[in-house]
Amino acid sequence: MIALRPKPLTSERFAPYGDVIEASRATIAAMNEDRFQRFDDLCELDAGDGRIAVSIARCRVATSLPYRVDVVERHPLGSQAFVPLQHCRMLLVVAPADADPESHTFEAFVSNGRQGINYRRGTWHMPLIAFETGNDFLIIDRAAREPNCDMHELAEPMLIESLVS
Amino acid sequence: MIALRPKPLTSERFAPYGDVIEASRATIAAMNEDRFQRFDDLCELDAGDGRIAVSIARCRVATSLPYRVDVVERHPLGSQAFVPLQHCRMLLVVAPADADPESHTFEAFVSNGRQGINYRRGTWHMPLIAFETGNDFLIIDRAAREPNCDMHELAEPMLIESLVS
Repeated sequence: MIALRPKPLTSERFAPYGDVIEASRATIAAMNEDRFQRFDDLCELDAGDGRIAVSIARCRVATSLPYRVDVVERHPLGSQAFVPLQHCRMLLVVAPADADPESHTFEAFVSNGRQGINYRRGTWHMPLIAFETGNDFLIIDRAAREPNCDMHELAEPMLIESLVS
Repeated sequence: MIALRPKPLTSERFAPYGDVIEASRATIAAMNEDRFQRFDDLCELDAGDGRIAVSIARCRVATSLPYRVDVVERHPLGSQAFVPLQHCRMLLVVAPADADPESHTFEAFVSNGRQGINYRRGTWHMPLIAFETGNDFLIIDRAAREPNCDMHELAEPMLIESLVS
């Protein structure tokens, strides 16, 4: 079993895997007569020849630590974004799209509670988990039409013991 | 001045204007080995010949009631979705895309704090407001390339005195 220590999520660190969706970018613009700041165009959606759908995932079974990852997945036909609909930290375990999806190629990140992410097409990742029942996440990805998920069982599982690195 | 009383937002009532984005639809499916419920494909995005962008709007100036609406807007080139990134009620004032955008054609809705909405292309609406500074909303709409906002000054303003109808 390989132990992974999550690093704090930043857009620089996450760049090989996709985008961080957050209100801290240089692209601030005013909108609605200055009542709002607008942080514009924060990720690159990719639905290939399909269309983009918006869905919600609601946590039914909360995850606790230590957490063991036995399986990873990727979506060969498009990107996939998750944005929390309340403040909650996300644990992310990822490897590049072209990597050998074995435990030594993965790294782990923990979000600050307000960040969302967008996995680039093909990025290997641990399936979504949440730490509280009822946590909602907006999903923005390719509308299902044909199978779009490769699952891979790890030869050696990964273990995350804590959200603190 | 015309007084508007907001009705509780439901997908049936909002159907002439667009979609309600919420986890209460008949399309529940399990995902990730039953850890999550997935509420699938909750709105119809429309970017015309453009592409869909994801942005964040952060409230800088909170609105309080009574609130007077002098101006409405619509986006002729695509749909526009707003999803709150924390629990907060949204006040919506809308008229159909093909309506005369004067006060007598508008109706008002108040969300339950977890609902988001997607304005259909051309739906007339009051610009976004929020009741607390720092409230964040995810925006999913057509990436800006050419002007995509018609503003209209109302001959007679509208007044919303309370969120309770």
